[in-house]
Amino acid sequence: MSKKFLDENFLLNTESAQRLYHSYASPLPIIDYHNHLSAKEIFEDNCFSSITEAWLEHDHYKWRAMRANGIDESFITGSESEREKFQNWCETVPQLIGNPLYHWTHLELKRYFGIETIINKTNAESIWISANQQLALASHSARNLLRSMNVESLCTTDDPLSDLHYHRQLADEGFEIKVLPTFRSDDLFYIENSDKFLSWVSALGEKTDSYIGSINDLFNALNKRFEFFHQAGCRLSDIGLKSVPYVESTIEQADEVFKKVLAGHEISEREVDTFKTQVFKHIGRKNAELNWVMQLHIGVLQDPNKRRFESLGPATGFSAIDDTCFAQPLSKLLNELDYDKQLPKTVIYCLNPKDNAVVANLIAAFQDSDRGPGKVQFGSAWWFNDQKEGMESQLTALANAGLLGRFVGMLTDSRSLLSMPRHEYFRRVLCNIVGQWVDDGEIPDDEELLKSTIENICYYNAKEYFCL
Amino acid sequence: MSKKFLDENFLLNTESAQRLYHSYASPLPIIDYHNHLSAKEIFEDNCFSSITEAWLEHDHYKWRAMRANGIDESFITGSESEREKFQNWCETVPQLIGNPLYHWTHLELKRYFGIETIINKTNAESIWISANQQLALASHSARNLLRSMNVESLCTTDDPLSDLHYHRQLADEGFEIKVLPTFRSDDLFYIENSDKFLSWVSALGEKTDSYIGSINDLFNALNKRFEFFHQAGCRLSDIGLKSVPYVESTIEQADEVFKKVLAGHEISEREVDTFKTQVFKHIGRKNAELNWVMQLHIGVLQDPNKRRFESLGPATGFSAIDDTCFAQPLSKLLNELDYDKQLPKTVIYCLNPKDNAVVANLIAAFQDSDRGPGKVQFGSAWWFNDQKEGMESQLTALANAGLLGRFVGMLTDSRSLLSMPRHEYFRRVLCNIVGQWVDDGEIPDDEELLKSTIENICYYNAKEYFCL
Amino acid sequence: MSKKFLDENFLLNTESAQRLYHSYASPLPIIDYHNHLSAKEIFEDNCFSSITEAWLEHDHYKWRAMRANGIDESFITGSESEREKFQNWCETVPQLIGNPLYHWTHLELKRYFGIETIINKTNAESIWISANQQLALASHSARNLLRSMNVESLCTTDDPLSDLHYHRQLADEGFEIKVLPTFRSDDLFYIENSDKFLSWVSALGEKTDSYIGSINDLFNALNKRFEFFHQAGCRLSDIGLKSVPYVESTIEQADEVFKKVLAGHEISEREVDTFKTQVFKHIGRKNAELNWVMQLHIGVLQDPNKRRFESLGPATGFSAIDDTCFAQPLSKLLNELDYDKQLPKTVIYCLNPKDNAVVANLIAAFQDSDRGPGKVQFGSAWWFNDQKEGMESQLTALANAGLLGRFVGMLTDSRSLLSMPRHEYFRRVLCNIVGQWVDDGEIPDDEELLKSTIENICYYNAKEYFCL
Repeated sequence: MSKKFLDENFLLNTESAQRLYHSYASPLPIIDYHNHLSAKEIFEDNCFSSITEAWLEHDHYKWRAMRANGIDESFITGSESEREKFQNWCETVPQLIGNPLYHWTHLELKRYFGIETIINKTNAESIWISANQQLALASHSARNLLRSMNVESLCTTDDPLSDLHYHRQLADEGFEIKVLPTFRSDDLFYIENSDKFLSWVSALGEKTDSYIGSINDLFNALNKRFEFFHQAGCRLSDIGLKSVPYVESTIEQADEVFKKVLAGHEISEREVDTFKTQVFKHIGRKNAELNWVMQLHIGVLQDPNKRRFESLGPATGFSAIDDTCFAQPLSKLLNELDYDKQLPKTVIYCLNPKDNAVVANLIAAFQDSDRGPGKVQFGSAWWFNDQKEGMESQLTALANAGLLGRFVGMLTDSRSLLSMPRHEYFRRVLCNIVGQWVDDGEIPDDEELLKSTIENICYYNAKEYFCL
Repeated sequence: MSKKFLDENFLLNTESAQRLYHSYASPLPIIDYHNHLSAKEIFEDNCFSSITEAWLEHDHYKWRAMRANGIDESFITGSESEREKFQNWCETVPQLIGNPLYHWTHLELKRYFGIETIINKTNAESIWISANQQLALASHSARNLLRSMNVESLCTTDDPLSDLHYHRQLADEGFEIKVLPTFRSDDLFYIENSDKFLSWVSALGEKTDSYIGSINDLFNALNKRFEFFHQAGCRLSDIGLKSVPYVESTIEQADEVFKKVLAGHEISEREVDTFKTQVFKHIGRKNAELNWVMQLHIGVLQDPNKRRFESLGPATGFSAIDDTCFAQPLSKLLNELDYDKQLPKTVIYCLNPKDNAVVANLIAAFQDSDRGPGKVQFGSAWWFNDQKEGMESQLTALANAGLLGRFVGMLTDSRSLLSMPRHEYFRRVLCNIVGQWVDDGEIPDDEELLKSTIENICYYNAKEYFCL
Repeated sequence: MSKKFLDENFLLNTESAQRLYHSYASPLPIIDYHNHLSAKEIFEDNCFSSITEAWLEHDHYKWRAMRANGIDESFITGSESEREKFQNWCETVPQLIGNPLYHWTHLELKRYFGIETIINKTNAESIWISANQQLALASHSARNLLRSMNVESLCTTDDPLSDLHYHRQLADEGFEIKVLPTFRSDDLFYIENSDKFLSWVSALGEKTDSYIGSINDLFNALNKRFEFFHQAGCRLSDIGLKSVPYVESTIEQADEVFKKVLAGHEISEREVDTFKTQVFKHIGRKNAELNWVMQLHIGVLQDPNKRRFESLGPATGFSAIDDTCFAQPLSKLLNELDYDKQLPKTVIYCLNPKDNAVVANLIAAFQDSDRGPGKVQFGSAWWFNDQKEGMESQLTALANAGLLGRFVGMLTDSRSLLSMPRHEYFRRVLCNIVGQWVDDGEIPDDEELLKSTIENICYYNAKEYFCL
């Protein structure tokens, strides 16, 4: 007999898995330590105008799927009506079996709206009506969506130049869910794109009342932003490394590169990487000093489709997975910090699943006792890997190479307030793996061991690691 | 209790899988849209002289296995008797458990000959006698072998210089199975092998009554062959990319390179790739114009064994899998076409399974509405991946990153008339995955959804996509 | 109902798997053809002072896990007491579920000491007492540990300069377990580290009473060591290739490079690889001449953590997995030997699991009949892959691409006399895979086929292949 789709034991294929999930994983609050939510949206606490706004306004995962279904852009990001867009999305869903979107989207319907209807062409209308009715209610305001999922704290992703107005407002107001910023300094790394880079540096100068004429000026200005973020409760930074740069170099060499760029000169690839290496080191040292967690995101092939980038802009669903080799430069970057005992707590996320074993084993080379257990972490299955097989693969690679029991667990990485069920999804996948081990006799059926393992990975490890 | 080997529910491990396969997948005709069959062999409709001729004359998969079993070349491609060769093959088979050949070879015995004997040393004689008796009958002529497997249409692989004599004869004659050519222009890409390249270009000139002194002449001559193939019913092209070339370049630069080669000068690696980039663009544009499907095969380490290449020639079972990085150049090639809205329907096959996630996600960056759903496809598990795990891995990667429901499904890529059961094999693997999802409650047990998904992937998607 | 942890059917999930393991795999003796055991330790036949000495003195796998658990180095390799170190190890174990160490360590307790207690903080004391009592008995001397595991022969790893004193003593004495050396010539390859390299060459000169002023002198001196090892029973060599070098070159060019280094000059990367290419060829040819097996270990990112390397030295648990591409250079190295019909029996081990398909298919390109079946082997899951998933992945990749039935099977690669249960682990994983195939009807339930497959992989293939 088949199991019912999405029932209470969804993804839980053994009795042990079901017991672990329902007893230990499910009751715990959510710490969503990395996402792209808008603090403003949370502060303002508005309701969505429709399920199309909630689901399709910013979700490049769904846009991507709709394009693969041959749907015209006007029904995706274009000018067609919300109802038409929703219809096209619903007609795409049946093509998506085996895709995480199939699960996410039905799970979101069920958890936030109590709707258990299968999404397809025929059911689109009834879902449209029911979801929209509920979205209009105060029960479905931004904050209530978070509350309904038992969110305890969350970390957004923010430009170092941000004044964190809404984060501070939320804190001042005493909103019971912690909404903290993350220091995401990608623009600082795009020195090869000199216009964008220089305008960011100039804005940094203004923001910090600094004259920035040297790399030391730059770092001093940056430090002011670090302190500002720290005071606003920030405990994480994040770097998206398109490629992993490494050049054995000095700060003086990076200073020369920086001054060349300030003077409007061209720089070589090696100079680009020299600068990035030193910027990386500075950020790392500053993270260590503040006892922050440094996150590294590796392996995006960013916006390979230029026509679409020009018409729709970045982050619209056209990125892919890069496959360049990074074990050597990444190990050298980490080594430079570690050698000076300046390596902070670090989480490394890779986008290409072929690199899971590389990352899972590399972190072991830089573990130490100075920041507590699990100092260097292999980040949860990221973006295109954020699905059952991807999670299983990340968890298995981590378990085989390191200490699963010290893993800090899941984050949504999402722009949507409706994505919190991904934590549930992760917890089910985790409990399914561990439960299977129990049932197969691969680990002892020792309640104390199982309880602490599941609870730590789902909640306590992150709470401690990120100081939340 | 163990399941019987190769019974009617072979590879179908759940009741849902069995139902899906027997109700929906099994009855459908076969569209074998990519193979290396000989139109001449089909036209002449002869019988094989023996099971050795049918199985071992051209099958480098089997040769390869026999060599790994320490068998002397004389019993493989050499001068030993057909009976001796067959004996050596049968003695190799028991070493092959877990290898797709173990399944293919027993499945072929069963489907074409009704023989259910296990292949080994002892049974070789009885199989030899029974198979040969049947092969001598008209029921086992070339065309009847195809008919017996319910083949509806098939696409061979052809040099652009081919006159497609037998394809046209078969069409004229009204043979009920469509036998269509594919435009496979590898020689055009081997500019680094200037002798081979120049003789091909010269043959192209003759064939098309053209003087070829520039890249425009070359493209004009090529276009004549495109038109000729199109009139013969061709709707697919194919390129085997040993490495993926990309140089940002102009047609003028490629013209210079071409003229240097015509003049007998050496060219640099960069010049090689400049030429290839522009040739690729031309082929892509021509495919777009004719609404063909462009197939790209990536990742072969071709003939690494020079001693064997010199004694036995190409395609004799010595190729392997390359591991170079191609995400960036491949994305740039696709982008050049897409930027001009000239990207045709495209199927990308990768030989290194580590690249499954890369390809599955890259295609999503170039989907569009101009050619219907599923415009860019991740090709079915290819060559060394054409086995259960390989198919599962390709299907899972595709499902996770894209729209499984739009997948155009299986092809044999085979030189043998006896390979059609590979479609059955693929369909079983597909139904097993989807059936498992149903039984595990990962997708709804919705007959309409399941029926259309299975039928589309096994038949209808290919029929529509390839206009067959 | 869950299976009991580590019971007699541990890892054996079907009845067929259980039957295969208990009937065929389990009774066979162990041939441990690659490890890092000390012949001296075996010759002297001492007892361990404690379970800490036996388990934690040399085991960088455990050190690595303890560091990831945030334990101070003083409790790992430092000056804290044996009891304290053991305590810290026991407190780390519960974090390791899903890690092979969790299985190894409990399996070792059970097999060598009959202790079935779960390892954790609370149970540490009782395990400490019981294990230490037993270790003090003659029943647990070095040789008796080997005897108790039914070891028939083992091959250590030795510097070509070693006088193999203890190997020869053991042979002279007639110790019933064969303890043979392996010719591991890594220092010869480290020409880029010229001080270390030159001092090794100078020691080689002394050892062989040779003047080494040219590459021919070097090879002649090396040949004397080959002969010396051969007379001591050596039948295997081993090369650890940090990266896979290949430069199309002549012996004369390598001679020039060598002379530059002897003269104290700097050499380029290309010169380094020229030298290594020719040294590789010499070693390969010598292996072919002596009918040895050449082992190649590929893909280590060696000691990326410089601070730890400086304080603790090499092989202390900080290495990781490299991800550079090697299919092309490796195929060219093999081809150079094969072209001259000088390719010896060869086993290729890769550390990055993404390369499993590459290696499994590359070996097929160099199979031949001159050394019996299975001439070129894909080595057993190595180091970081030496776990259930790693073994399954290696076995599946091998089976899909080649002849599982010809596989030479498992080795421990260990420095510890307590590691022999890893053979049991491997055999269970193997039987589980094959048993599952039987139960799923993917292979026939043919006792003769199954018996010979399992027995050959666990024992007979290695015995024949390594001439042991």
